[in-house]
Amino acid sequence: MAKNMEELVNHAKHRGFIFQGSEIYGGLANTWDYGPLGIEMKKNLKEAWWKKFVQQSPYNVGLDAAILMNPKTWEASGHLGNFNDPMIDCKDCKSRHRADHLIENHFEAKGEERVVDGMSFDQLEKIIEEEGITCPNCESDNFTGIRQFNLMFKTHQGVTEDSSDEIYMRPETAQGIFVNFKNVQRSMRKKLPFGIAQIGKSFRNEITPGNFIFRTREFEQMEMEFFCKPGEEKEWFTYWLDFCHNWLLNLGLDSEKVRRRVHDEEELSHYSDATTDLEYLFPFGWGELWGVASRTDYDLKQHAEHSGEDMEYIEQQTNERYVPYVIEPALGADRLALAFLADAFQEEELEDGSTRTVMNFHPAVAPYKVAVFPLSKKLSEEAQEVFADLSQDFMVDYDEAGSIGKRYRRHDEIGTPFCITYDFDSKDDGQVTVRDRDTMEQTRMPISELQSFLQEKVKY
Amino acid sequence: MAKNMEELVNHAKHRGFIFQGSEIYGGLANTWDYGPLGIEMKKNLKEAWWKKFVQQSPYNVGLDAAILMNPKTWEASGHLGNFNDPMIDCKDCKSRHRADHLIENHFEAKGEERVVDGMSFDQLEKIIEEEGITCPNCESDNFTGIRQFNLMFKTHQGVTEDSSDEIYMRPETAQGIFVNFKNVQRSMRKKLPFGIAQIGKSFRNEITPGNFIFRTREFEQMEMEFFCKPGEEKEWFTYWLDFCHNWLLNLGLDSEKVRRRVHDEEELSHYSDATTDLEYLFPFGWGELWGVASRTDYDLKQHAEHSGEDMEYIEQQTNERYVPYVIEPALGADRLALAFLADAFQEEELEDGSTRTVMNFHPAVAPYKVAVFPLSKKLSEEAQEVFADLSQDFMVDYDEAGSIGKRYRRHDEIGTPFCITYDFDSKDDGQVTVRDRDTMEQTRMPISELQSFLQEKVKY
Repeated sequence: MAKNMEELVNHAKHRGFIFQGSEIYGGLANTWDYGPLGIEMKKNLKEAWWKKFVQQSPYNVGLDAAILMNPKTWEASGHLGNFNDPMIDCKDCKSRHRADHLIENHFEAKGEERVVDGMSFDQLEKIIEEEGITCPNCESDNFTGIRQFNLMFKTHQGVTEDSSDEIYMRPETAQGIFVNFKNVQRSMRKKLPFGIAQIGKSFRNEITPGNFIFRTREFEQMEMEFFCKPGEEKEWFTYWLDFCHNWLLNLGLDSEKVRRRVHDEEELSHYSDATTDLEYLFPFGWGELWGVASRTDYDLKQHAEHSGEDMEYIEQQTNERYVPYVIEPALGADRLALAFLADAFQEEELEDGSTRTVMNFHPAVAPYKVAVFPLSKKLSEEAQEVFADLSQDFMVDYDEAGSIGKRYRRHDEIGTPFCITYDFDSKDDGQVTVRDRDTMEQTRMPISELQSFLQEKVKY
Repeated sequence: MAKNMEELVNHAKHRGFIFQGSEIYGGLANTWDYGPLGIEMKKNLKEAWWKKFVQQSPYNVGLDAAILMNPKTWEASGHLGNFNDPMIDCKDCKSRHRADHLIENHFEAKGEERVVDGMSFDQLEKIIEEEGITCPNCESDNFTGIRQFNLMFKTHQGVTEDSSDEIYMRPETAQGIFVNFKNVQRSMRKKLPFGIAQIGKSFRNEITPGNFIFRTREFEQMEMEFFCKPGEEKEWFTYWLDFCHNWLLNLGLDSEKVRRRVHDEEELSHYSDATTDLEYLFPFGWGELWGVASRTDYDLKQHAEHSGEDMEYIEQQTNERYVPYVIEPALGADRLALAFLADAFQEEELEDGSTRTVMNFHPAVAPYKVAVFPLSKKLSEEAQEVFADLSQDFMVDYDEAGSIGKRYRRHDEIGTPFCITYDFDSKDDGQVTVRDRDTMEQTRMPISELQSFLQEKVKY
């Protein structure tokens, strides 16, 4: 049985996955710190993505662009002009709200789903009026008109604070890829089609973040921009959508909790000719996990226009010149971590009627691959040798506190797939007991075979 | 023969290691983007650090705290009050300078070395006057007094821009560790001594950044805070200083270009009772790479005082209570990358009198571990199978452009330790030619042995 959000947040804190940011100072709204187990799990997810999207790909290469970029980037991308939340104020109680969220929450309360992305301010205002939506704070319907609020965090670089020094914390990693298209293509001598993949932090001054690490002001993105010849974008869109979907399932995400949602004409961004979201059924409902968008040549052309740089690609054999089309699979590392945490976190009824809490992560995702226990403290030294040996290649925990049964439960609760007990026979026969988290079965195995056994299990 | 900085910056750009940030828009002062090879190399360094400091360590665990923290953190740490550069203005030409850099450059020009860290503004002003230091811009000695300039980037969170919403981009990762000391200790049931290690971006609004990726406003840190019982700090200080030094040498850094510099009484921060820098001989001179500091109980006590939280540790067996002492080895990932780039980049004279450019990275650090070449394009399919197979475990390049000799040189220039050529015999005898970057020797090897051959080579 899956658990609810409150149980998940609580478990994540007490088991060292995720802490409230700046907790000792009362926190800082919607910031979260990854604890020792959380960072290992998130790191595993990022590495699994890099492995499939960069290392094993015959097409793609990586990049790591700076968070601080020349502000002209954001003029070209449209973020300085259009990257705004629609804000509305209640004239009576002076509270401020996101108009789109007011509408969505209104319909949700009626048991309906209504997507308002892409609507104009006029359209939003009309719905609020027609539906008689009121202020959630004081129930007045005495609203101002909708106004824009830019989502980029602004700061100043250099000694003075005049506007010439204004810079922004990037709201997405994608633009760092676009501005480097030519640098990468030339230095790596890449031919189309090829992709550039990047993992990095982005920042959005969201008015209503929430749902734990689902929507936060500071978040980590895993984006790829895949450049192809115009006319081939439909084929590659399908290829990468399938590729992303399979990646999730191969790492063990419940296939019934992953669905595709196609953006219709009205919802599509003006530069996109096709977008499909991979959504996950979070404990609070369906939410976007991975957006796969066909972005045409919009971004490269915008940067060509604003920078004066040529963004055309020249085909060697035909001498044909064109600005490539782009497919973008954009994934948030934090909501990915949330999906895997929620998916794994189970209350399980055992045959004897008792229950246990278990996180059934795929071994590739689990923070620890294995835990090593000495049966008795008299065997600490030998068990520590097994730890030292296995930790050459894997994240391993060493635990000698409490009964073996208690240690099993503790490691079930943090999703360690295998526990190894070193007992009084081990010194003589060179074997240990390996206990499987999911089947709870115990088998004897030679110590010399542990490395290859685990190597096989972490494959995906 | 090692190369100079200009050659290094140029090579880094053209071979896909490091590009100027926002280059198509004329850049943004002192931001740099890691290209496909740069990110692989930096990633290897970060993983090597994590492996030795977290994975294989019986003491340490990881953490990933948010960049945005509650501002009270910076009151407690002293960054809001004291984290300032000493700025001085020329009254004649109105140019602004860092007073400490003016002095250091003055002595450097005289062939002397003078460290002014830790000096008061009065002391700095006195030196400027005594030495007759003038404005580098107009040669006037008509300076203002020295004033403070806070190094933290400030921004606003939420809808309004009033001061209650002021937050800062963290200037160091260390404080994210200190505020989580209790969360980590409790959730991971850690006993002293133990360390918390973290990799992440920090930001400092430096007035005079420079030397490529040596000093930048946005930079990545690899910091550990190691908590121990008061009285044991000297022993652990020595332990971690040796550990860090060995880590650098084990990954192949030239031991003659690494030295220790002990901070004397005057230079020590007020909270530190011992600090030693590991310095590297960069092409522009000796520079700090790794600072190992004994920070006493200063940070935890500051946070206890400002937050009201108890930061004491209780020894289970003795019931003894105390605030732990801290040893901090703090390393910059970007200057680490610069050290490894500079160390590896060589112009080599060959036996026949010709020269080659080679980057002699340790295989664990090299972006590609191996490159696969078909001898002829007729063998593409078979060679691609070797690529697909090896890329399960390693970063591999596939290259079929130009003569084998040209391909060798291309991979020498980016530091690929091994090149594999699939030829017309390979299909029959299942062997390929493996060419070693450093010895340039070629040997035949069964394809089936490549995986274990490479696995052995990347160990450190």
